[in-house]
Amino acid sequence: MRLFNKVAVIGTGLVGGSLALAIKKHKLCQEVVGVTKHRASLKAALRSKAIDQGSVSLDIIKGADLLILAMPVDSIIALRNRVLEVAGPRCIVTDVGSTKDKIVSLLEKTFPNYVGAHPLAGSEKRGILNARTDIFKDSLCILTPTGKTPKEALAKIEKLWKGVGAKTVFLSPQAHDRILSFTSHLPHIIAFSLINSVPKPYLKFSSGSLKDTTRIASSDPLLWQNIFLTNRANSLKALDLFVKDLTKIKGAIRGNNKKLLLNILIKAQKKRNILG
Amino acid sequence: MRLFNKVAVIGTGLVGGSLALAIKKHKLCQEVVGVTKHRASLKAALRSKAIDQGSVSLDIIKGADLLILAMPVDSIIALRNRVLEVAGPRCIVTDVGSTKDKIVSLLEKTFPNYVGAHPLAGSEKRGILNARTDIFKDSLCILTPTGKTPKEALAKIEKLWKGVGAKTVFLSPQAHDRILSFTSHLPHIIAFSLINSVPKPYLKFSSGSLKDTTRIASSDPLLWQNIFLTNRANSLKALDLFVKDLTKIKGAIRGNNKKLLLNILIKAQKKRNILG
Repeated sequence: MRLFNKVAVIGTGLVGGSLALAIKKHKLCQEVVGVTKHRASLKAALRSKAIDQGSVSLDIIKGADLLILAMPVDSIIALRNRVLEVAGPRCIVTDVGSTKDKIVSLLEKTFPNYVGAHPLAGSEKRGILNARTDIFKDSLCILTPTGKTPKEALAKIEKLWKGVGAKTVFLSPQAHDRILSFTSHLPHIIAFSLINSVPKPYLKFSSGSLKDTTRIASSDPLLWQNIFLTNRANSLKALDLFVKDLTKIKGAIRGNNKKLLLNILIKAQKKRNILG
Repeated sequence: MRLFNKVAVIGTGLVGGSLALAIKKHKLCQEVVGVTKHRASLKAALRSKAIDQGSVSLDIIKGADLLILAMPVDSIIALRNRVLEVAGPRCIVTDVGSTKDKIVSLLEKTFPNYVGAHPLAGSEKRGILNARTDIFKDSLCILTPTGKTPKEALAKIEKLWKGVGAKTVFLSPQAHDRILSFTSHLPHIIAFSLINSVPKPYLKFSSGSLKDTTRIASSDPLLWQNIFLTNRANSLKALDLFVKDLTKIKGAIRGNNKKLLLNILIKAQKKRNILG
């Protein structure tokens, strides 16, 4: 099912590269071009066949009817006017950023045909070498339309995500950021802090539990600096609620309160079992 | 390499059952008998061939030359005198408990041939149905001898763990509890608290990060109530250090301090990469 002629992906890392691969596999367009900052990753993207043509310059996006912004939020914001100049106002523009409120409000002012998106399919890995065709299969992609979002562009972006195997759901950018602060940003804050708090000589006695709970602390620091700071208020609120629960369990341990402690753990186990 | 004649395992759950399976596979003894509280798990243990014979009564451990205590810490403590009565003072006794200070000091008073052990090979799963022959392969087993531990018993217990594929390391019971409070107990406290702090309607937007960081919140609540309360002082200290790191990252986010935040995340990423 061809949806587009020329798709341009700016930022061919884990998510951008995987999306390019998936779009090609499912034949959703005629041609995929890629833009990346470094020549080495450009070569890797071409070699992986995620893109048909690529460049370190924006000029290659000219004539695209879909533009996917898959670089960090800061770079998207910095480059947006230059991108508009080259891509033109008729091009449909989407992004894959992990926070939405700030970026949606800026990008929908810049691009007439913008649709915000956040596929819940990243990982602690990064780069085109970790890109895979199937990371969106059976995943959830959150679309964040507003009153300004053109219906036709939204319908096409939804088809795109369904076309690569994702389920789609609509949330306002504000609801997205509030919810994701709990389901993604808070776990990252915790993982970064937890590994920092473990004395280094103890690391060789790590069990699976420390490895599991801190795996995402291997994530790209610059990307996560961006995410925390573009979702500050929500991240801080989620953190406060977490500390409240932490204080409850601490009180139960300190007070040797067997019954309260067991109730807290049972409640947690039941809730975690919902996630499967 | 036969090390024992009759091995008795009390508590044929995930760890006890897997150890029984591994001992049989590596032919480390002639016969394995099992004791369990519930008839259903006894049947399952017999069916899985983890044990050759089993009973819900302690009488079956009579004549064993190795006794493995693989039930929760509380039950070990409650049953210890009755176990000594049936097993006799010459039997070598070990346990697989996750905290060691309290239990080692009690059990070495009870059993003349006691050696404390903690294999770092459990998981959030439980029960004989999740037991597997190979969970100790390439894992680490911490042995916690003291001045009172008979050398011959220690040597045999070390051979047992090497025989099932584990690497062994010696720590004092106190050092064990201090280290594990960071590498295992703290991650569990955090996982239980994190899942409790996420609003239930948000769970359907969970990404891999929330699933990874809270997987161990599915662990057995009673087991972990026992662990936290038998390692209270260390757990609380580890928790305080974690909250210190959490406060640092919170300050950096609140103050929009890009440089400090990035430094915290880079430090965490480097440390996490050590774990592989």
